[in-house]
Amino acid sequence: MKHTISVLVENKFGVLARIAGLFSGRGFNIESLNVGSIPKTPFSRITAVVIGDDAKIDQCVKQLSRLINVVEINDFHGGKTPFVARELVLMRVKATAKSRSEIIEFASLFRAKIIDVSADSVIIEITGDENKINRFIGLVDSYGILELARTGNLALSRGQLPE
Amino acid sequence: MKHTISVLVENKFGVLARIAGLFSGRGFNIESLNVGSIPKTPFSRITAVVIGDDAKIDQCVKQLSRLINVVEINDFHGGKTPFVARELVLMRVKATAKSRSEIIEFASLFRAKIIDVSADSVIIEITGDENKINRFIGLVDSYGILELARTGNLALSRGQLPE
Repeated sequence: MKHTISVLVENKFGVLARIAGLFSGRGFNIESLNVGSIPKTPFSRITAVVIGDDAKIDQCVKQLSRLINVVEINDFHGGKTPFVARELVLMRVKATAKSRSEIIEFASLFRAKIIDVSADSVIIEITGDENKINRFIGLVDSYGILELARTGNLALSRGQLPE
Repeated sequence: MKHTISVLVENKFGVLARIAGLFSGRGFNIESLNVGSIPKTPFSRITAVVIGDDAKIDQCVKQLSRLINVVEINDFHGGKTPFVARELVLMRVKATAKSRSEIIEFASLFRAKIIDVSADSVIIEITGDENKINRFIGLVDSYGILELARTGNLALSRGQLPE
């Protein structure tokens, strides 16, 4: 199954390499991973989407929580903690004088933004959950996706509702 | 100096750990890194923002290009290749009945989206370049940022202009 795992770590050399190594050393497929430092703190947050056997991932999460420099870890699998997840995708799509307006229309329907236009392509920026992103990629794929970069899921736990 | 490095890699176990290890082994500070698989291809794209001495990073990029499973590498430093960069940030900000409308107004001015509302906080989704994101974080910081996750730069080279 697919797990979205959020790890708060101290900004120290080698933490990312150690965590990535722990996943890959156990044969888990890292579908996506991102890490960014949190302003005004000595911490970074890593969000990883990992595919593998549930029990084995649970075990791996426990081991991660014992690693030095790991402050907090949250496995959003199973819905115990409600969360929101979004990802960002940039893609350069082939666009001729004829197809450009069609592509721009699709982008606008998905609330995506055109952030670069050139002689024969456009760069589209889109954010959303996995389903939305995959639908959009499926839609523009026929025009020719020349380059694509995606961040993978970024996830935060939802806040409490009033009691 | 700060370098945004984009690496196209084959989806194989351990590639990410090896690349992260190469950066941290040389004492470079990885400010952010993200990796996501590219649909319908056997490849993933890694985008890393690395801070360090220019000459040493150049050397490191050369070594990366010789690594097995690395298909293509692009260091966007120095402006030789024009590129666009965007990052995605999710943040949960403390919001009281009194401050909520102010926060929502700031978010709307920055074209950010409110994607979750709870009794005492809101989750904001914002994309943009580093400057915009940092301005926004500076703006809402005084309300209290409870949790934050950021993808770091995602970058693509711009298309050619007509000749």
